[in-house]
Order: sequence, then structure tokens, then C-alpha cells
Amino acid sequence: MKFGGTSIASIERIRNVARHIARERQLGHDIAVVVSAMAGKTNELAGWCEEAAKLCDRREYDAVVASGEQVTAGLLAIVLQEQGIAARSWQGWQIPILTSNEHGSARIKHIGAAAILDGFAARGEVAVIAGFQGLHKESGRIATLGRGGSDTSAVAVAAALGAVRCDIYTDVDGVYTTDPQIVPKAKRLDRVAFEEMLEMASLGAKVLQVRSVELAMVHKVKTFVRSSFDDPGGFKQGTLICGEEDIVESQVVTGIAFSRDEAQITLRRVADRPGIAAAIFMPLAEANINVDMIVQVASEDSGVTDITFTVSAADFARAQTILFKAQPEIGFSSQHGASDVVKISAIGVGMRSHAGVAALAFKALAEKGINIRAITTSEIKFSVLIEAAYTELAVRTLHTLYGLDKA
Amino acid sequence: MKFGGTSIASIERIRNVARHIARERQLGHDIAVVVSAMAGKTNELAGWCEEAAKLCDRREYDAVVASGEQVTAGLLAIVLQEQGIAARSWQGWQIPILTSNEHGSARIKHIGAAAILDGFAARGEVAVIAGFQGLHKESGRIATLGRGGSDTSAVAVAAALGAVRCDIYTDVDGVYTTDPQIVPKAKRLDRVAFEEMLEMASLGAKVLQVRSVELAMVHKVKTFVRSSFDDPGGFKQGTLICGEEDIVESQVVTGIAFSRDEAQITLRRVADRPGIAAAIFMPLAEANINVDMIVQVASEDSGVTDITFTVSAADFARAQTILFKAQPEIGFSSQHGASDVVKISAIGVGMRSHAGVAALAFKALAEKGINIRAITTSEIKFSVLIEAAYTELAVRTLHTLYGLDKA
Repeated sequence: MKFGGTSIASIERIRNVARHIARERQLGHDIAVVVSAMAGKTNELAGWCEEAAKLCDRREYDAVVASGEQVTAGLLAIVLQEQGIAARSWQGWQIPILTSNEHGSARIKHIGAAAILDGFAARGEVAVIAGFQGLHKESGRIATLGRGGSDTSAVAVAAALGAVRCDIYTDVDGVYTTDPQIVPKAKRLDRVAFEEMLEMASLGAKVLQVRSVELAMVHKVKTFVRSSFDDPGGFKQGTLICGEEDIVESQVVTGIAFSRDEAQITLRRVADRPGIAAAIFMPLAEANINVDMIVQVASEDSGVTDITFTVSAADFARAQTILFKAQPEIGFSSQHGASDVVKISAIGVGMRSHAGVAALAFKALAEKGINIRAITTSEIKFSVLIEAAYTELAVRTLHTLYGLDKA
Repeated sequence: MKFGGTSIASIERIRNVARHIARERQLGHDIAVVVSAMAGKTNELAGWCEEAAKLCDRREYDAVVASGEQVTAGLLAIVLQEQGIAARSWQGWQIPILTSNEHGSARIKHIGAAAILDGFAARGEVAVIAGFQGLHKESGRIATLGRGGSDTSAVAVAAALGAVRCDIYTDVDGVYTTDPQIVPKAKRLDRVAFEEMLEMASLGAKVLQVRSVELAMVHKVKTFVRSSFDDPGGFKQGTLICGEEDIVESQVVTGIAFSRDEAQITLRRVADRPGIAAAIFMPLAEANINVDMIVQVASEDSGVTDITFTVSAADFARAQTILFKAQPEIGFSSQHGASDVVKISAIGVGMRSHAGVAALAFKALAEKGINIRAITTSEIKFSVLIEAAYTELAVRTLHTLYGLDKA
């Protein structure tokens, strides 16, 4: 069971979390719980680090910010004990959860399950685990997994313990066909395939951290997303993220995701010669800037071409500067940028066996007067880049087109 | 170097702390720094624990409250690095600082100095150590040393490293002959003997934690108390706590301490028979209540006696209840209590070689009309219990009597 920051933002809410745990205990389950820091706490700690130094030692940053989860793990253990449930807190270094040494974005390498399993067997003890953190064994220092890393901690712990299920409690009651704030008819999905969830998370759905879904997929950890604000004793609804084989009736398109974190760059009149792509994209790669959608359009003049691609909004200014510096080598006539763009994606494992799914979308969007600036497709999803002003219209159009409005 | 909560209450103050450290670095010293949590932080964390459960698991309490020092250690390391000083933070379990398992009031059993000394030698690195905390080796859990325990951490680290000196930075510039708020003529002492400081701390002076002074005395760690709010580059004044052999000219009385944390209990007409002291004091000892001053006054009637003693104000109500319950066994006629009392103490190693020091005080207090309710003496101090209303008058009287007003 994993509880995020809003679910444990006060002692009163931690008591509610304990009621969820008590219910599962009464069903006879052994339980490991992974907790985030109280809502806002990680931002406060990270803010102090930034105030201390613009570019701070990531090892020290990790030591500072990891304290937030240490606090909530201890507090939840206290509340559980108060309710008569045997419990103890575990920090990453105590278990240990061993990680790589990429401080601030470390990856989990190994989890020692023995002590926690012993706590289940010998003392019937709920293990309350500080999420987001681990220990880099060689240096003996705390490493954190990056923002939202507690989801990843939870799935990794579930895999290490051989858990039947990983329940992610959050502030929504599951994964929806799209954002209900844009499409009120959006419906909660009972089941989503790992691959679909991975695309949704990558393409803008914020329910789960991408890496946690990857991990769940690799280790086949059934992950159930539900709300911690439900009545702890009442009916439980949510979304089960599972293997395709566990989904009886799959839709062609399962969900519509969108991401506003995009920026578009167009280089005009680039020489159409071998090695031109490398000349453009190598300097960006060296600056650790990810390029997503790429479209090359032949210019009217022969021998030159226009190239459009997207980067994340955070990298926009930096990418433009790098490209201007590289202008002599690349040889473009002008650079154009736009940050008022959005990437709309449709995801569904059914696309594998259905042809022409994306083509339907291009037609429907065109009929609404929405201009598509770039397209990418993969086996189970396609994405289009459009002007941001059309976001809601485009999402609603695709949601209806693929039959997701129906009950 | 040790810095308390008010010295590191913000990033701005932490920058000031770093300037003190930079000055000592420039003098060529290797430095270990022990830090407390930011002012108010430990209270906040302890408050959450209490909200979670009135009587909480002390192991979990320790895990929660130890996080405060983890944060300041990391932040100070970041600020030092920003100023070009190699530094890293150390938590209790990383060093390790091994403790007993009395969670909430653990005692330091061993400090592994090797890694810190290696940091000095190999990387010229300032070791920034989270105070107040350690690791109980057998359980692998965090144990804290009790409130104010960072002083103890600092002295213990200094002893383990074989440090030349332990500098305690606080919000006052040293140890005074008495509280300057009561006696404006009170003077900062340049030097105080370990034994004197131990008595002063035990008898009400709040500059240092009692256990830290014990530890400094046992390991002969010269401890320098000074203010962190001084100009980091300027003249440094403070009080050196050291062996008597390092004090050239010692006063008969070094300081006047007082404690308001006292309560007086009198049992009237107690049967004057063997075993009566045990009948009174055993039930209190079993309830973990410390009895301090004891006076027995023969009653006018033969065969009975009045017994007066003091307990800490916090134990007052509990002690009274216990004694009423034990009335049949003890056999007193009535119990009288008073919490409006204060214990005034005069401390000085010179008392060992001077007779009649206390007698002077009894006379001087009597001349001012101050009634003495109880007296205790030891080799280097004496204490009198008086009515609280006379506190300031008594402190000033003794301060003048023993020549402490003079420049």
C-alpha cells in the first residue's frame, strides 16, 4: 500500500490511512506500506537547499529531502500502534533499499526483503517504509529516486516481497479515459494494460510516475490505483494496472492523454545533405535535451528542407541558444519557436490489431479545423502536436471518436 | 565546533556559521561540526508524535525527531561547499555513533572516528555531523540522546577525534557568575573548572547540558562556550571549561546558580523509628522520583519528627499522591507542600580549601530576613532552599558576599 503526500498531510489524515491499513489487516494480509513526505514538505526542503546554493551537492540535497519521508513513516507507525496494530518504520538504509549513485534520480538496484518478511512472520508487523529514498552501498550515502519516486519505491518493494498486489492510494479514484476536467464524460477505467499505462504516464497522465509503471510491467506487479479519501470501510473502486492477458475485453483506444509541457522549434531552409540530422541533434543530446517529435518538410527550393521538432518546455530556451550557436555548422536560414503547443495522444493496445486508427483522428481533427503540426506513432499509441488553444476541443473530439464517452 | 538551534535557524544564519568555520579552517585546523535542528523544529516534530499518540513508541519518536538534525547537517554542508570549503554531512548511523538502546535518552557508547579522520586527511573535508542522534547497533534503529543532546554529541565527537578543543557556539557569549538578568554586574568567567561547570549545569545554569559537561570532565575535553552571533572575523571571547590545573587564580566561589524547578514537601509528626526513611523514600524511588534536599527536625513531642524534602516541580503532584497512599505505613499526621520555593547554590572549587564559606551565606541571608528552609552541601557547592519571592534578593546578596560584583 502506498500513500502520497496529500493522503498523509496531517495526523488526522494519517489516522484515516491507518483505517485503510486496519481493513486490509483484518482481511488477513501481511502489509508493507510506502509513504511519501507530507504534502509541501519536499518542496520546503528543496527550497532550503536552493537557497543555500543555486547548484548544490546532490548527495547533500538527498540527505536533506529524504528526511520528509522519515518523518511520515515514523508518524504512521505510531498511529498504527495506537490503534493496536503492530508496526515499525523503515528507512531506506535500514532495509536496505540499495540504489545506483545517481543522486536525485537514483535507480533501485536491490531490496533486502528478509527483515521485512521476518517482521511479518515473527511479529505480525506492518512494515512502514519511507519512500523516495535508498542507500548507495559503496558510499554509504542516502540517494533519492527523483520527484514522485515513492510510487517507484512501492512497486519495487511489492516486487521484492512477492506481493499479490501493489495498491497506490492517491487523491483520485483511478485512471480515467482522459482528464475529467476537460471531458466530464471521462470514465474511470477498471483495468489498464501495463503498456498502456506506461504510454499514458509518459504522455502526460499524472496519476503514476513513469518509472513505477515500467517497474510494474517488468516485474508483473499488479498495481491498483485508488483514492485514500474513500470511506476506509466501504466499497472500493479504482483501476487495476495489469497484464493484457488479464483484460477480457480491450478497447482499441483506452485513453486520451495530453501534455502541455512541449515546445516546438522549426529550422527553415536547412541544407538537405547527409549528416544534417546529426549536426542538429547531437549538440542538443550533448546538453541532455530530449527531442521528441521530428518532422521534415521539403522546401519549395530544391536542396533545402524545413525541420520541425519538439523539446520539453523546460528546455526550450536552452535549445534555442544551442541551435543559434551551431548555426554556422548546421546552416539554416532562420529559427522559429513556439511554446503555445500541446501534444495530444491516443493510447490502446488494440491499435496493434486495428489498422487506420490514427488516420481516423487526423480526419476528425481536420474537420474541426485543427491543424496538425507534427505526428508520432508507435505500436500502441499516436500523438499529434497542435496549437494549445485547441487542446480541449481536440481531446473531446478524440474521446468521442473512439467511443470513450459511452457508459 | 557545535552550533545550536538559534544559530542555524535560517539559511542566512547558516551562512554566518559557515564564516566561523571558514575562519578556523584558515587557521589550518581540521574541523568536525555538530549541529542541532533549526530552532523550533524539534518541538514541531515532537508535537506531531504526541498528536499521533499520547504515549508513543520511543523508537519511532526517535526516528521522527532525528530528522531535524539531518536537515541542518545537509544544509550546512551545502553552504560550506558554496563558499569553497570541502564538506560533507554525517548522520549518526553513517559515522557510526553507537548508543545504548534507551530511546529518547540514549547514551553514546562508541564513535567510529576512522571515516571522519580519513575525510580530514584525504580530502581536507569539514565533517558536518547531525547532533542529538546515534545508532543502536543491535536493533539497527536511530536513538536520540534527549533534549539538548547535541552538546553531548559535540563533546563525545571531540573526545573520539582527540580534538584540541570543543567550541560550543550558543546565543550567549559564555558562562556568567550568575544570571545577568538578575544581577546586571554578573561577569563572564574566562575559565571554569569542569567540576564547577557540572555543578552549575546541574543546579540550574542552562548554558550546557549536564551530560555534556560530565563527558568533557571524564575525557578532559577543553570546552569553549562562545556566541555564534559574534563577528566571525573579530575578537573572540567566551568561557573555557577546563581542568583545575589550567586555572591559575581560582575564586572561592565561582558562580551563583538557582533553580525554580523545585517543590517542597513536609511530613509532620513522623514516628522516629528505624526504617522510617525507607518507608518514605522507597515508594518515591520506585516511581522514579528524585529526592534532593532532606531535613529532619525533631518535634516538640518525643518519639516523632518533622521531615522536609524537595522534589522537582514536575514530580510534585505525583509525589504527594504516592505519600498519601503510603500514609498508613509511614504514619505521619499531615502532609504540607509548597511549590513557591527556589534553590540557590554557590559553586566553587575553592570551597575545598576554605572552611566556613556556607556559614557566611547563612548569616548574610538571615540579615536580609530570608528564611532558609533546607540546606545541602558538597565539597564544592552548597545550596539553600528559600521562598521564591526572595530569589533575586538572595542571588544578589550572595553575588556581592563572595566578591563576584568586582570587575
